[in-house]
Amino acid sequence: MERETMEIKLKPIGVVRVKESDEKIKSKWIKGAKGVIEIFEEYADGLDGIDGFSHLIVTAYLHKTTEEQRKVIKVKPRRLRHLGINLEELPEVGVFCTDSPHRPNPIAITIVKLIRRRGRLLEVEDLDLFDGTPVLDIKPYTPSRRIEDLQLPTWYQEVLKKVREKCPELKDF
Amino acid sequence: MERETMEIKLKPIGVVRVKESDEKIKSKWIKGAKGVIEIFEEYADGLDGIDGFSHLIVTAYLHKTTEEQRKVIKVKPRRLRHLGINLEELPEVGVFCTDSPHRPNPIAITIVKLIRRRGRLLEVEDLDLFDGTPVLDIKPYTPSRRIEDLQLPTWYQEVLKKVREKCPELKDF
Repeated sequence: MERETMEIKLKPIGVVRVKESDEKIKSKWIKGAKGVIEIFEEYADGLDGIDGFSHLIVTAYLHKTTEEQRKVIKVKPRRLRHLGINLEELPEVGVFCTDSPHRPNPIAITIVKLIRRRGRLLEVEDLDLFDGTPVLDIKPYTPSRRIEDLQLPTWYQEVLKKVREKCPELKDF
Repeated sequence: MERETMEIKLKPIGVVRVKESDEKIKSKWIKGAKGVIEIFEEYADGLDGIDGFSHLIVTAYLHKTTEEQRKVIKVKPRRLRHLGINLEELPEVGVFCTDSPHRPNPIAITIVKLIRRRGRLLEVEDLDLFDGTPVLDIKPYTPSRRIEDLQLPTWYQEVLKKVREKCPELKDF
């Protein structure tokens, strides 16, 4: 098997449930939505011990990304238009420098706040995923995930400055 | 298509290169290894703009996890044996409360320090991945990934206390 053409197969362990429409979720990325992560029965015991973690890392498959969108390699952070920033003001950068859902493997890494576990349902906040999104994995957010001495490129800092002028409470984009 | 049996197909965008053996990498999880992430040519432009980020989030496929290991739902944090902690002292918890490579979808989320980009090669530190591990995605570590008001379950805090008695510089396990 050639490594570059190797095919990796994964199965959902659960699914995202949110009440809002996709359009609403897109425009709500600043804060995220409340919702439920439903874990399928065969994996439910995998949640034992999860109560007490305040934050979880959800890995999800962005199933609405098209084949065409999976070919995207360079992007502009388009969702900043929701803040009233012009596309012309934004740099075009590689997808691996962004959180764009348009990327070769449309995998999301979303940090959510765990409100409550009810059996195989996780009630969470800060979801930026559409209703019906397949969940691939859940990991706890543990102390080593918090990087203190973070540095950011100049282009990123410049966009961040614009973002914070429009919306001071935003940590990033 | 039934959502629970839906098959998700992904392709590597690159590969991990480390000099150390798998056994050495396993025993080095405390600190991680230096190494290179090689991005395949067709995706190389996706790195444009990455210089200046101090940390990256690498999503990788743990290709050495067997079919049998993918059925594991409950685990003990076995790698703590390297610190001299007895397995009997450790609780058994659900895989989604751990970083165990034995899980239904063996996906790793590794935060690495970016030392230098050379074309399509990323020189990094803090790798806990075996040589040859297929890389699925790269994202920048941005400020919103840093969670300040973190809480942890009692069982986790108790194990963490044991871990820090053995190895004070460890943030977690």
